[in-house]
Amino acid sequence: MADFPEPLVRLMEGLRKLPGVGEKTAQRLAMHLLKTPRPEAEALARAILDLKDRMRACSSCFNVTDVDPCRFCTSAGRIDSLLCVVEDPKDLMVIERGGDYRGRYHVLGGALSPLHGVGPDALHISPLLERLRRGGVEEVILATNPNVEGEATATYVARLIRPLVQRVSRIAMGLPVGSDLDYADAVTLSRAFDGRREM
Amino acid sequence: MADFPEPLVRLMEGLRKLPGVGEKTAQRLAMHLLKTPRPEAEALARAILDLKDRMRACSSCFNVTDVDPCRFCTSAGRIDSLLCVVEDPKDLMVIERGGDYRGRYHVLGGALSPLHGVGPDALHISPLLERLRRGGVEEVILATNPNVEGEATATYVARLIRPLVQRVSRIAMGLPVGSDLDYADAVTLSRAFDGRREM
Repeated sequence: MADFPEPLVRLMEGLRKLPGVGEKTAQRLAMHLLKTPRPEAEALARAILDLKDRMRACSSCFNVTDVDPCRFCTSAGRIDSLLCVVEDPKDLMVIERGGDYRGRYHVLGGALSPLHGVGPDALHISPLLERLRRGGVEEVILATNPNVEGEATATYVARLIRPLVQRVSRIAMGLPVGSDLDYADAVTLSRAFDGRREM
Repeated sequence: MADFPEPLVRLMEGLRKLPGVGEKTAQRLAMHLLKTPRPEAEALARAILDLKDRMRACSSCFNVTDVDPCRFCTSAGRIDSLLCVVEDPKDLMVIERGGDYRGRYHVLGGALSPLHGVGPDALHISPLLERLRRGGVEEVILATNPNVEGEATATYVARLIRPLVQRVSRIAMGLPVGSDLDYADAVTLSRAFDGRREM
């Protein structure tokens, strides 16, 4: 790449740091941006800077937001008595994309992971307890990831919040809708059996 | 997406305009940039702006460049007597990625496409003729895409330049017909160069 123009090389290096972007994709994206009309390319660059300038953690739920408290905390159309606890803002976005859930959120900021030095103090667990102590929440749905760390985090948080709220639930684990039994791993299958419901 | 923070939504909209980036990928990239350290995100934004500010066409070969004439035209390590004609700067990059070719380049800026109103005047064909008239080039390798437009362009250009140069060749049809240079692997590309035929 010695003879390639430096601005192009530098953009490709920047793009390659994005998840799922390899050398070829970085090159294709860079060549696309080269042909993109200037205002459109500028809008993208400004959107990246703006993200860094304007986004911060919501002081109530710790989701990323440009207004504090965030729209999920202030929106009038949401159910106050229902609180969904997730690890990361991106998990919240996935749930919102689903479109079914209409309660509030609380973002822990990660999962317990003793191996990586992430203890309870590194997560937003105390603010969650304070929030529940203020009352109004009837059910907490623990929607941490269905892996070892997420399970451990759900178990830990459940133990702490059980005295503070009527109902603590965990999102169901089982077979993905539209999948095939043939491709299910043993643990998932076992969970699917454990979680079976009468019909 | 009504409740999503506006800076995040705007970035996702910008990212979705990139080739191969759908809604889910845009979301994943945006969430990644949210967690990216500020200097790194700024570097990417600046690289995009820089690309627009500093890149222009080389006055000699019409490749995109930050210095004029471009490094491909001025590099001492390249063979002056060999000239490779490509449609786009991205084709030049693909050939450079292959790493075998050590001659000079000429970028046409597209291919003839009567259906899309792209005639000879829309391409950098006159500057190519002038360049060849100045002498020094012994062989021109036509490396336009192996599709209808690219073939027509190669045939058209070959007819014009044959009086001006000793040898006019076409990269071999080792490339799958109907495909795009951009997706060729280095070995296929190398074979295509080796198997070029006089025309």
